[in-house]
Amino acid sequence: MKVLGIDASLRGTGLAVIEQQGSRTRALHWEVVKIPAHVPHSGCLRQISERLAAVLAAHQPAAAAIEGGFYFKNAKVALVLGEVRGVAIAACAMAAVPVYEYSPRRAKQNITGWGAAPKEQVAKMVQSVLGLPTLPPADATDAFALALCHAQSGRGLLTGEPI
Amino acid sequence: MKVLGIDASLRGTGLAVIEQQGSRTRALHWEVVKIPAHVPHSGCLRQISERLAAVLAAHQPAAAAIEGGFYFKNAKVALVLGEVRGVAIAACAMAAVPVYEYSPRRAKQNITGWGAAPKEQVAKMVQSVLGLPTLPPADATDAFALALCHAQSGRGLLTGEPI
Repeated sequence: MKVLGIDASLRGTGLAVIEQQGSRTRALHWEVVKIPAHVPHSGCLRQISERLAAVLAAHQPAAAAIEGGFYFKNAKVALVLGEVRGVAIAACAMAAVPVYEYSPRRAKQNITGWGAAPKEQVAKMVQSVLGLPTLPPADATDAFALALCHAQSGRGLLTGEPI
Repeated sequence: MKVLGIDASLRGTGLAVIEQQGSRTRALHWEVVKIPAHVPHSGCLRQISERLAAVLAAHQPAAAAIEGGFYFKNAKVALVLGEVRGVAIAACAMAAVPVYEYSPRRAKQNITGWGAAPKEQVAKMVQSVLGLPTLPPADATDAFALALCHAQSGRGLLTGEPI
């Protein structure tokens, strides 16, 4: 089973595709959709949509995993993150790929055994579990952790159902 | 000049296309993307994206106008509205249509002269300005008001620039 993990962010969305076969899990693809400051807001959303469509078409994952259950300090941050999430969820829906939500805490706990694990620890576990030659870039780490969380649980733990 | 107005909402996005030629402004298209409660979240975003792509392709507007400068009572509402906005902005960007933001207050003030005008008053003015045979549906009224606001101001009054 192939799973796409999505760590949504306006200028640094992480995408990671893993494949689980029996007890073996390997990384098929990862990238960070880095968008420089001079690109306008709408151009960021367009690029994220295009990259997602390309990755979905290339890998045809059975499911996608995205962060959910956030705590926001302010609504402006929520609005912008919502924009990126909307683009990502719509891209998956258009490719008929179901999207499951996992809290950041749940994804970290799944891979490190500790929901408040620091990013470096998550990155090291991702590297180890997937046998990567180097540490994944920071923005791809969370995408891998989300994909692994879904591959190992098989369902969205926030809702149990795709969103 | 053709302008697309977008009133983003998960289950009732309003879309309206107007055309301004000299002193005359007419309505070319309006619809409400009504999505029943049984359709999952991701399906709503998919339908909104598809309807926007269809309307953009059919009418090829020079610009799109969307609400901005919201006040949110809670971040959950902001996240969901952000999702719909993101899908709408990305659809416009993929069609190379610049998106301008107007506050709801500014759009109402533009058409009625009063920023806190009730919805019925805005609907009557939209009907009158565009010479519509009947009152537009409630969810299309705001989309018309946004499109008219852009047609008459020619720029996004929140930022002055497309987003």
